[in-house]
Amino acid sequence: MSEQTIFRNARLADGSLADLTVIGGRFSAIAPAGQADRAAVEPAAIDLGGQLVVPAFVEGHIHLDTSFYGDAWRPHIPCTNGFDVRERVAFQARNLAAAAPMAERAKNQLELCIGNGSLAMRSHVMVDASVELKHVETILAVREKYRDLIDIQLVAFPQSGILSSPGTADLLDEALKLGCDLVGGLDPASFDRDVNGHLDVIFGLAQKHGAGVDIHLHDSGTLGLFQVEEIAARTQASGMAGHVAVSHAYGLGDIPADALAKAGEMLAARGVAIMTNAPGNHAFPPVAALRQAGVTVFSGSDNIRDSWWPYGDGDMLSRANMIGYRSGFYEDHELEAAFDVVTHAGASALGLEGYGLAVGARADFVAMPAQHVPEAVVAVPKQRTVYRAGKAVARDGKVLVPWA
Amino acid sequence: MSEQTIFRNARLADGSLADLTVIGGRFSAIAPAGQADRAAVEPAAIDLGGQLVVPAFVEGHIHLDTSFYGDAWRPHIPCTNGFDVRERVAFQARNLAAAAPMAERAKNQLELCIGNGSLAMRSHVMVDASVELKHVETILAVREKYRDLIDIQLVAFPQSGILSSPGTADLLDEALKLGCDLVGGLDPASFDRDVNGHLDVIFGLAQKHGAGVDIHLHDSGTLGLFQVEEIAARTQASGMAGHVAVSHAYGLGDIPADALAKAGEMLAARGVAIMTNAPGNHAFPPVAALRQAGVTVFSGSDNIRDSWWPYGDGDMLSRANMIGYRSGFYEDHELEAAFDVVTHAGASALGLEGYGLAVGARADFVAMPAQHVPEAVVAVPKQRTVYRAGKAVARDGKVLVPWA
Repeated sequence: MSEQTIFRNARLADGSLADLTVIGGRFSAIAPAGQADRAAVEPAAIDLGGQLVVPAFVEGHIHLDTSFYGDAWRPHIPCTNGFDVRERVAFQARNLAAAAPMAERAKNQLELCIGNGSLAMRSHVMVDASVELKHVETILAVREKYRDLIDIQLVAFPQSGILSSPGTADLLDEALKLGCDLVGGLDPASFDRDVNGHLDVIFGLAQKHGAGVDIHLHDSGTLGLFQVEEIAARTQASGMAGHVAVSHAYGLGDIPADALAKAGEMLAARGVAIMTNAPGNHAFPPVAALRQAGVTVFSGSDNIRDSWWPYGDGDMLSRANMIGYRSGFYEDHELEAAFDVVTHAGASALGLEGYGLAVGARADFVAMPAQHVPEAVVAVPKQRTVYRAGKAVARDGKVLVPWA
Repeated sequence: MSEQTIFRNARLADGSLADLTVIGGRFSAIAPAGQADRAAVEPAAIDLGGQLVVPAFVEGHIHLDTSFYGDAWRPHIPCTNGFDVRERVAFQARNLAAAAPMAERAKNQLELCIGNGSLAMRSHVMVDASVELKHVETILAVREKYRDLIDIQLVAFPQSGILSSPGTADLLDEALKLGCDLVGGLDPASFDRDVNGHLDVIFGLAQKHGAGVDIHLHDSGTLGLFQVEEIAARTQASGMAGHVAVSHAYGLGDIPADALAKAGEMLAARGVAIMTNAPGNHAFPPVAALRQAGVTVFSGSDNIRDSWWPYGDGDMLSRANMIGYRSGFYEDHELEAAFDVVTHAGASALGLEGYGLAVGARADFVAMPAQHVPEAVVAVPKQRTVYRAGKAVARDGKVLVPWA
């Protein structure tokens, strides 16, 4: 018989206290506190003491291969003549050559995320003619080591473009064969200067492998919007609704309200999700308006202490705070919306099975001192216990399970 | 003879390790680690173990009278027809009527700030025809109780305007007699509809009492800029350079670069400081450009869990992080600039005596696990020990000294 644990006095989002019964790593019962069925043999019991219990967070966009978190400090150096992706990639290559081994850096970052309560993640992993499949191979091995602790989706990410980086299409093909779950992209217009050519490769590979798509799109304004429209059209044409995401999509942040409304309707109808990390100093997709239109908006830490910027804390609760702060969310329902972005909406974007606090769902949850979700979003309590399949795996930011 | 303590192995901003000697609450020597003069009698020694030591933070804009931090959660309710200060003040009055006593709420907020490392503060305190001097009297008493722990400047703040709220000018006069250090203001144009009339009262009272000036100015664009110019002109005319600040000054955030450059030069020349909390969802004064022009830019938490919004953590290091994040500060010198805003620039704006890590300065400092200032700004370590006049007064967010 599967192991049974009962978590008593869990505060749910509606403020009520519940007892959560977990059997075989899944919730088998959620009952008002004190009313859970008593088994013939009393199961192991953990009293959560009225702490708020929420589903584990979903880290929807991170770069496990390129962070220096836990490694030496590497000062940021700006591009010589305005932002230039190729120059940054060269800077990154120099940094990585001097850095601790990638597996160790990925481990540091993973434990940061798990410690903060993320138990599902989508990481982009760089693929190009210079690194070929080295990053993918390393991160695939890291994923395997951490599989009992966290679910990781990997995106084969063409960091140096596709058409403008000969051989990349084949490398992406190979990365998907090796085990990547999604194929990525990078600014089809401004980077590869060929929207259709770039998207042909991406959607062709996605169809060939039954893989998802998650495209980095930084282009602003109408050029950004045009590409969002093209991606949505291909999503519909290839029957991939629910399996395609556009990351950043800055263009949605600086178009008129009527164009945004139209774009929101189209994205919702065609099943394209939008990822935003609520950047600090430029426009980003309007979270409330897109959610209102029915679009799945999810979030991620994006870069953490890497060659692109020095920020990032691997904490999706503090990311929800940032989404709320940047969006002018003050009311309780708005703070709850910001929280949804890093939990249920993230699970939906990643297509996670058995997510949430519900009978039958996997018992991946976080307990923390807060009276309800709005307070958690503004206070961002760091004293958290993280449970994976009903077992405590991290407390107060520290992973309790040793590195495999 | 005054008590002597030596703090060994303090990491300074330049990365070096130093021994800091404190006598009578002030730094008497700062020497490379291991080289401090040995007294005839060995003084008490505390090994800081290589932790980063920085001057205590300066909380430059807070509202001690109106927060609900530590009290019951009060959901935010938006104004019925777009933002309206009078409607919010009415909402606040209803909330305050049901809240815990003001002194208790102020204590909660003070201990939050001290726990995070702020040992100097400027708080605005509401004065108007409805509350008269009640808030001022309460907060003056709280300041007295905490005087050994934190230096507090109080601004008599006309939350309901001056000309449009009969009797307020006299109440402000009375508040300054009672012990407020500065006279405040509120949107002379958009709120009182009379820029000169509003400023006549403020600068008249400042001159009469030898008080400073700190004016809330939310007006955007050219209307905001016009009022900044008027305030600067009066500052010069009344010989008050260095004693006047404009809080928020959103107008500086949305004017063309040439107008901003001119405004920066003028503010620097006339000795007017600018306070920004790096708000989340609208334009704010460009920190780097203003500093470049020689303007003193300081910061504060502003509202914390009150009737105006639910955010705020009373942590000026996380505020430095927000300033950097919102300003696109990535390089080390930029992160150091964000840190300067919450330390030395704040001390300058508040006119603090004996601030900093220097011989003769007061030994108000914070020790935390970080290798240097840029890392502290991006990582925001919460494990801090806060020292007031060389004595530990808070650790890991908790004040060690009981409420007087």
